[in-house]
Amino acid sequence: MAIIVQKFGGTSVADVERIRNVAQHVKREVDAGNQVAVVVSAMAGETNRLVGFCNEFTVRDESEYDTVVSTGEQVTVGLLALALQEIGIKARSWLGWQLGIRTDSTHSKARIEGINAEVILEGFTRGEVAVIPGFQGVTDEGRISTLGRGGSDTSAVAVAAALKAERCDIYTDVDGVYTTDPRIVPEARKLQKVGYEEMLEMASLGAKVLQTRSVELAMKENVRLQVLSSFQDTPGTLLVNEEEIMERRKVTGIAYSKNEAKVTLINVENTPGVAAKIFSPLADSEINVDMIVQNVSEDGLKTNVTFTVPKTDLQKALEALDAAQKKGELVYGKLLSDSNVAKVSVIGIGMQSHAGIAQTMFSTLASKGINILVITTSEIKISVLIDEESSDDAVRMLHAAYELDKKPKRVE
Amino acid sequence: MAIIVQKFGGTSVADVERIRNVAQHVKREVDAGNQVAVVVSAMAGETNRLVGFCNEFTVRDESEYDTVVSTGEQVTVGLLALALQEIGIKARSWLGWQLGIRTDSTHSKARIEGINAEVILEGFTRGEVAVIPGFQGVTDEGRISTLGRGGSDTSAVAVAAALKAERCDIYTDVDGVYTTDPRIVPEARKLQKVGYEEMLEMASLGAKVLQTRSVELAMKENVRLQVLSSFQDTPGTLLVNEEEIMERRKVTGIAYSKNEAKVTLINVENTPGVAAKIFSPLADSEINVDMIVQNVSEDGLKTNVTFTVPKTDLQKALEALDAAQKKGELVYGKLLSDSNVAKVSVIGIGMQSHAGIAQTMFSTLASKGINILVITTSEIKISVLIDEESSDDAVRMLHAAYELDKKPKRVE
Repeated sequence: MAIIVQKFGGTSVADVERIRNVAQHVKREVDAGNQVAVVVSAMAGETNRLVGFCNEFTVRDESEYDTVVSTGEQVTVGLLALALQEIGIKARSWLGWQLGIRTDSTHSKARIEGINAEVILEGFTRGEVAVIPGFQGVTDEGRISTLGRGGSDTSAVAVAAALKAERCDIYTDVDGVYTTDPRIVPEARKLQKVGYEEMLEMASLGAKVLQTRSVELAMKENVRLQVLSSFQDTPGTLLVNEEEIMERRKVTGIAYSKNEAKVTLINVENTPGVAAKIFSPLADSEINVDMIVQNVSEDGLKTNVTFTVPKTDLQKALEALDAAQKKGELVYGKLLSDSNVAKVSVIGIGMQSHAGIAQTMFSTLASKGINILVITTSEIKISVLIDEESSDDAVRMLHAAYELDKKPKRVE
Repeated sequence: MAIIVQKFGGTSVADVERIRNVAQHVKREVDAGNQVAVVVSAMAGETNRLVGFCNEFTVRDESEYDTVVSTGEQVTVGLLALALQEIGIKARSWLGWQLGIRTDSTHSKARIEGINAEVILEGFTRGEVAVIPGFQGVTDEGRISTLGRGGSDTSAVAVAAALKAERCDIYTDVDGVYTTDPRIVPEARKLQKVGYEEMLEMASLGAKVLQTRSVELAMKENVRLQVLSSFQDTPGTLLVNEEEIMERRKVTGIAYSKNEAKVTLINVENTPGVAAKIFSPLADSEINVDMIVQNVSEDGLKTNVTFTVPKTDLQKALEALDAAQKKGELVYGKLLSDSNVAKVSVIGIGMQSHAGIAQTMFSTLASKGINILVITTSEIKISVLIDEESSDDAVRMLHAAYELDKKPKRVE
């Protein structure tokens, strides 16, 4: 008898009919002889409604915010328990505090520290399905906490880890992880398996299938995660350890992000600690800096520094740098910016053992006259910053260049 | 420094603006140097929405129902805490399980067994207002329970009793308890004080100002309860022990109910236990029987029995009695019913010491040719059943006959 954790997002539980549909998904696993814990989000739109109430006030108290916002999931667990009982399946709901989903005290973006698996396992011995709210937990002070938006994926993985579940199935409104965005490349192929690290890169580079933190936790706890559709009955994509991927492939997917802006500082004094001088005012303003390149001038006295920030933070970034210059904390010649840029990334665990991946990328883009503004690389990905207008073309050409539309051969 | 409990119902917290208005009411007590605990209901309409979700399922699980429905109050406490902080008042919310509002396990109509007053009192020493959800508690099994509709009044009284509060102020959309319904009698006067028992009679006889159970609890725990408006800044009505009422008055108020139906069984065999035979099938069908009269025939062999049931239960009552006759459990000649009836009641602790109250009632009704169908009495009330069409007239005439529009003299 295997333990399966299933997780359903807000659109999958948007109304009573859909909650009944979720109950059928649970029934299938129960009928197959499995012990099931289901993790659910709030009904679609509900969290926004509750956050909206809180935002009407001019003060912020994260623990009161959590008390209010966590009610969305509380409603869903009760209703799903009823839907399961309605089709003859024993089920009960557990709230975060009833289950001891202990978190730290950083309300509204808490981290799970532990879960009392025993109470769920006891329920299993009584033949009960455990219905568990995602997104919520309880602090040591006995107050309700929430994990931040998208935290339900993380809750599901944490429950799966605590139960040592065979698998954690994340049901969403897409049916798996694709080689790239099918809206741009109709030939995009659904991946049967993808490595945790590849998924992490894809998630952080713009593929919004799974919350990054949930993938990190799955990797750390070695939880087999499956992404699949709650509306279609097709196999999804399984997240596994890299060594489990038996396909001989160099590149796994192409990701892109249009939420980028480029900032360039011209003629910065090239003294030790200059990077800290540039990036500490940005960090103080809570701006995430992504791609960074630094060119040193011939004489080594001046340097140009280019980096990207989220498009929505560009104005704030420029103001922070300007203020630092005025305070004399930072000296530069000129401050340039460009928000018509996009980041396109090639991702694949296979690139570690295959030469020429980068070369293929650069020559493919060059063949269409697409200019590369910035390049950054890691062991399993190469990202380039290009003009935003060329972004869709670049994704299509790279998808074709790496033959991602073709099923890769299996390793013999 | 006095402890005050304030309770606000659903219409008083219907939206963020009204919640801000509630915060001002709380501020007034805080500014007056009092320590305040506030009990709130769900935002108007919210409980119905949540009950509606649960009712869409064909199964019933009261503990899941409670998990879902209790979220309404959970939202309000968080928002009121924010509203208080917004105007500079230290406040925090407490949920039923955080406060140890312990109840029995009869989910959806649980009874409060105790409250950990210490945590609220500790909050008071930190200068905190305690914001507490009405209607909810926690069972010994650690599950959320609810007290049934209108239970927030009872929560407030229980909190006041646990805190040994100076007063429990129930803010509603009416501004107090009146001598009768002002929509029928414009001269109806707001009572400054009313006795617990009088209030109980008035509540059970149709005056829907306070939930009966909350009045019972206030009487038992000797909690001074005040009913007042959250929208008007006028003094309300104080519920007190009978001995605290210093006004020399015979009758306190006139109540009426149009939700009555009369059932008469003609020629029932007058054998021992006949009442049980009549009323047990009704009890089995969960029908509340109210006014009962039994007349014995001259020979003592047959009897006619008349009683009232809620209008909505009439059909069910007739079916239950018919079924009992068919099974041979009950023998009667004829079964009559009439749903065009109303119950009009005269209530007053003073009638215990004043003769002629009943006589005034009967002669007043007779003077207008209103026929009395059934009479029942208790120590502090007389109820009559009359034709529904005469009900408003009867209330007006009795209000005038007992001079309820005039302020009574105080006892010297």
